[in-house]
Amino acid sequence: MTGRIPVAVLGAGGYIGQHFVRLLADHPDFELRVLTGGPRSTHLRLRELWRISEEPPSSVGDAKLASASPAALERAGVRLVFIALPSGAAGAVEEELTRRGLHVFSNASDHRGDRDVPLLVPEVNAPHLLALRRKGRAVWVTNPNCTATGLVLALAPVWRSLDPRAVHVTTYQALSGAGIPGVASLEATDNVIPFIAGEEEKVVRESRRILGELRGRSVRSSQVPFVVQCARVPVRDGHLEAVTLETSGPVRTEELLDRWREFDPLVGLDLPTAPHPPVVVRTEGDRPQPLLDRWAGSPPRARGMAVSVGRVRWDPPYLRFFLLSHNAVRGGAGGSVLNAELARAHGYFDGEPGASG
Amino acid sequence: MTGRIPVAVLGAGGYIGQHFVRLLADHPDFELRVLTGGPRSTHLRLRELWRISEEPPSSVGDAKLASASPAALERAGVRLVFIALPSGAAGAVEEELTRRGLHVFSNASDHRGDRDVPLLVPEVNAPHLLALRRKGRAVWVTNPNCTATGLVLALAPVWRSLDPRAVHVTTYQALSGAGIPGVASLEATDNVIPFIAGEEEKVVRESRRILGELRGRSVRSSQVPFVVQCARVPVRDGHLEAVTLETSGPVRTEELLDRWREFDPLVGLDLPTAPHPPVVVRTEGDRPQPLLDRWAGSPPRARGMAVSVGRVRWDPPYLRFFLLSHNAVRGGAGGSVLNAELARAHGYFDGEPGASG
Amino acid sequence: MTGRIPVAVLGAGGYIGQHFVRLLADHPDFELRVLTGGPRSTHLRLRELWRISEEPPSSVGDAKLASASPAALERAGVRLVFIALPSGAAGAVEEELTRRGLHVFSNASDHRGDRDVPLLVPEVNAPHLLALRRKGRAVWVTNPNCTATGLVLALAPVWRSLDPRAVHVTTYQALSGAGIPGVASLEATDNVIPFIAGEEEKVVRESRRILGELRGRSVRSSQVPFVVQCARVPVRDGHLEAVTLETSGPVRTEELLDRWREFDPLVGLDLPTAPHPPVVVRTEGDRPQPLLDRWAGSPPRARGMAVSVGRVRWDPPYLRFFLLSHNAVRGGAGGSVLNAELARAHGYFDGEPGASG
Amino acid sequence: MTGRIPVAVLGAGGYIGQHFVRLLADHPDFELRVLTGGPRSTHLRLRELWRISEEPPSSVGDAKLASASPAALERAGVRLVFIALPSGAAGAVEEELTRRGLHVFSNASDHRGDRDVPLLVPEVNAPHLLALRRKGRAVWVTNPNCTATGLVLALAPVWRSLDPRAVHVTTYQALSGAGIPGVASLEATDNVIPFIAGEEEKVVRESRRILGELRGRSVRSSQVPFVVQCARVPVRDGHLEAVTLETSGPVRTEELLDRWREFDPLVGLDLPTAPHPPVVVRTEGDRPQPLLDRWAGSPPRARGMAVSVGRVRWDPPYLRFFLLSHNAVRGGAGGSVLNAELARAHGYFDGEPGASG
Repeated sequence: MTGRIPVAVLGAGGYIGQHFVRLLADHPDFELRVLTGGPRSTHLRLRELWRISEEPPSSVGDAKLASASPAALERAGVRLVFIALPSGAAGAVEEELTRRGLHVFSNASDHRGDRDVPLLVPEVNAPHLLALRRKGRAVWVTNPNCTATGLVLALAPVWRSLDPRAVHVTTYQALSGAGIPGVASLEATDNVIPFIAGEEEKVVRESRRILGELRGRSVRSSQVPFVVQCARVPVRDGHLEAVTLETSGPVRTEELLDRWREFDPLVGLDLPTAPHPPVVVRTEGDRPQPLLDRWAGSPPRARGMAVSVGRVRWDPPYLRFFLLSHNAVRGGAGGSVLNAELARAHGYFDGEPGASG
Repeated sequence: MTGRIPVAVLGAGGYIGQHFVRLLADHPDFELRVLTGGPRSTHLRLRELWRISEEPPSSVGDAKLASASPAALERAGVRLVFIALPSGAAGAVEEELTRRGLHVFSNASDHRGDRDVPLLVPEVNAPHLLALRRKGRAVWVTNPNCTATGLVLALAPVWRSLDPRAVHVTTYQALSGAGIPGVASLEATDNVIPFIAGEEEKVVRESRRILGELRGRSVRSSQVPFVVQCARVPVRDGHLEAVTLETSGPVRTEELLDRWREFDPLVGLDLPTAPHPPVVVRTEGDRPQPLLDRWAGSPPRARGMAVSVGRVRWDPPYLRFFLLSHNAVRGGAGGSVLNAELARAHGYFDGEPGASG
Repeated sequence: MTGRIPVAVLGAGGYIGQHFVRLLADHPDFELRVLTGGPRSTHLRLRELWRISEEPPSSVGDAKLASASPAALERAGVRLVFIALPSGAAGAVEEELTRRGLHVFSNASDHRGDRDVPLLVPEVNAPHLLALRRKGRAVWVTNPNCTATGLVLALAPVWRSLDPRAVHVTTYQALSGAGIPGVASLEATDNVIPFIAGEEEKVVRESRRILGELRGRSVRSSQVPFVVQCARVPVRDGHLEAVTLETSGPVRTEELLDRWREFDPLVGLDLPTAPHPPVVVRTEGDRPQPLLDRWAGSPPRARGMAVSVGRVRWDPPYLRFFLLSHNAVRGGAGGSVLNAELARAHGYFDGEPGASG
Repeated sequence: MTGRIPVAVLGAGGYIGQHFVRLLADHPDFELRVLTGGPRSTHLRLRELWRISEEPPSSVGDAKLASASPAALERAGVRLVFIALPSGAAGAVEEELTRRGLHVFSNASDHRGDRDVPLLVPEVNAPHLLALRRKGRAVWVTNPNCTATGLVLALAPVWRSLDPRAVHVTTYQALSGAGIPGVASLEATDNVIPFIAGEEEKVVRESRRILGELRGRSVRSSQVPFVVQCARVPVRDGHLEAVTLETSGPVRTEELLDRWREFDPLVGLDLPTAPHPPVVVRTEGDRPQPLLDRWAGSPPRARGMAVSVGRVRWDPPYLRFFLLSHNAVRGGAGGSVLNAELARAHGYFDGEPGASG
């Protein structure tokens, strides 16, 4: 039997941070030891900050957030740090943590483009983790933007066979993507906002990188054009995306559905938060919907980790479909937790206190 | 000076019907004489049915809806009938009315594809009205689907110069597009529904027809591919559309904006409900928004009749922008009223009681 | 070990019906054998009708609804019938079912006032079940209106000690209280509707009956005035109620909170769907909230079965607080299931196929 | 003919500030000369800050907000200052402005309780303005809290005849009451928040003061108990209030409705923003509703200035009804503008540049 690796969540008071806590509170691989928060939240119990529509795990509801330096994390025995800090603030913290030898799994965008920091979605580009490994150094991994995450998960199973000439993506993004306080209710109610700062650029850049090819120890991003338009809709959770692929590849709709249904590259690895299957195909005429499909994913620990695909229509040369994924789970905290589980399964933490071996 | 032509609204109790009443209650060209409604509404005063967020015109608030046969309309002296009946029910009624010599302007889709029934957006394809005229017979005109209306208005000013190879459209459609009762609140709240029955097909077919070329007395639809995905968002009024044109045409963004801004083909005709300009260009970074831009259009009588265009981005060969139009006004009742105003300006009703000449 | 009693849900396609299915799909006491639905739903799989924001239990997702006569229910071996039919339609059906000796637990209002049909909330008036029992006949029990249910649960623990002169209740009721299709989204979005047909009268009448006293085999309703105003708000699930008690009773806020916290009259009965405790006291300054507290209740099978109470303020002679309960669970399907569990615990079904003994 | 008095709006970038600008941009009595805003807004054009769902007046859309000291206001010739600053920040500014002899009409709460600063709703307590006048000094007037404003307007016409023993009020308050950014959309969507900081206390204190009696040059607040519970609902504009009066007064419902309908104490004064009548009685069964009634008030300049009353039910000793008023117009900027119009009509600004006389 193995023990659990002591971990911290930085920025635990935010919406993504709360999802980290929810996923890690009773995790078989990791032991939640430190939660940090900013000055607005450190006098409150976690239960008072909580904005997820299910109760906080009872083991952490009464926890208070602390401010904690990297040194304090070390003193607390923390070996692995999940980053839910805002982009901008996160970058320098990650640098210091890894310099000290702490492993970092970050949801922040600051280091997503770094040469030797894998931008990882386990089902899609696990080899990037192995190839970009910084030998003898702390593990440092980022998960992509929430919109890009759902997109590459849905594209991966059909990417090579369709060999698209262009990918068109238009998004219906949930309010929680902007965190707390995020979008003012007076701007969101009865409205759609056709702009999210930096989002379209991130989706293009990160999707192409994840779908890119390894050349030795570097990634060559895909050169397929991604034409992206992003908007915010008055929905709490779950990013919906309308996707059109321009393709000359031979396509039969049933074959496509089968590729999605059969896709399950993590099947043998026994990662606790991995959804099986990772792509859920909906054949009803009006799905996926944020309300009904945001929590897709089984087993129970993987709720919200699967991407749902539906309304697949093939009119050559255009293949159209909708996809949905939970932006704060699969596209945020859950993605990062799964990355850490993958690293552990590959033995990256062997020798750490609490780790196997 | 001229008098006013006596008109009726069929289906005045529905949401589009109410907008017809709002626009016609005090109209310089038309005199609202008969309002009809179904059995659910005929015992109620119009003010009790009203679902538009401004008071009904005081002259009609206490009116009750009647059921009225074509013969009864004739006896009441009605000469022109606006159709706000549901598609399916409308078709046969329109046929009988025009057979009796009553002029018909319809928002229903039943006869939108008919050879000799113009599918009309005055700023875009006024020549279709003239060419398809059924000489010596009652005038019969339809306005297009709400989504197609906004789309062709935004495309028309730049269509020839851009000569696109493909048009990609993804929509964020308002709840009022489904009328009353329409979408159940339990399905709409905190949700997006990625399906609207028949909508994608209508947008493709009708947009291509309106942008088509006249060949003598028939229209040859445009052959440019329209790749359309439609979804319903929890917004009351105003259809937002994300548009991407694939084009090799020489484009400079400023020149495009100028084309939109200078577009005003109805400028000399003095139509009461025509917006000047019909396309409003927004240069803020996060517009158009349904909440702020749905009522665009001046003068005051043309509120909700302009289409707003914004977030124009040109990355060759892709031109991206968002557009917004009020689905129930420009895309419904107002479009039909404007069509009737155009017909009147061209003298189609000369000799009618109340008409000029 | 005991078996499970074969049950049916009538009206399983509606929103309350779906909650019955969710609660009964894997129930230790009952075996879900027949699901009925109206003509709009009988050609669809349950998964296509589903409007609850978590997946249908896998054992029933592909079930189709049938229309089934009482005789057909008998032939299928059903012994107990849960009624999720609309009020009006339900009454005659319940009469026939009980005449045939089938036990009925109904969410419909038709027979809530009947002399010998207990109107039951187990934690509040279990003795009514025992006293009003129709000896030698089928068990027939109704659960109260959703708003009344939450109200009497919150009042019961403090009712005698406060001995109020008047109870003022103003409600913020969720959309799901009107079922599907229920409230049109065009009426609900960005709006509050200060009227729900028959609701205020039901809350007064049913609350007073449940809080009434047994006189032999009949109930004398409480004579305390209930002053009630009801409105619908754009929230999916969870009825919030603002309550003011006018009281001269000696009150200390801490003592009140303790009475609520200590209230757990079902504690020894081991009913699967019973929440422990049934009243959750929130001491944060801004709770209960529908979003965060609608699913209150533990153990897991009792999610949504507890009422949450908060913002307790005592300014003599007025005691003010807010309460929240899940209208479709505690105030609907769950209430009825709990009633059946209580009846079973009291041996009412002994001798039935599948029942203990 | 008279000129217009030069005025400024302090805090013009906020939601109430924008409503001040909307109402004053083309006002017959006042000339909008200076708009101030905080550091977040001073680099933007007013049109980019605008969050009201109708276009900004064309004369001010391109204006930029400035920061401006009291001295700068004087140099600009401003004589009257409307305060839309947040409470807390407003108090000291108001003091300095009045010390310099500038007239102040404030929406902030800091000085609402001051002995010699009238808390004014013209239709209700105009005599307070006259009695509390600070002779020979600048005029300094506050308007009450948004919820209290609607409440006292609805109570005033029936207050003396009903002579209530207690007033129970429960509110459904709009998001705009919290301004911008105000409530986070992630907290507001699909939710009701049963707490608004300080609100219940303000409603009690201010309502009793406005309904109080003059004793020489001071106001004796009403001693009638106000029992208030306040909550925020996901509605953009318009505070709905459920009111119950406990009364032994002789009441006939029709007589009550007549008192409301006939109430129009400002009828002879010709104030531009005054609604006639100020109380609109709705007799439909489900009104008033925020969506449909928030803009009640005629003539056009008084849109949003009337309070709507409906669902009047009299069950002795309890009189129940709902009321609705536009919190940002009648309960904010419009209330303050009307106060200034009343002061002008009473000659308080005679001798000012631009004023009559």
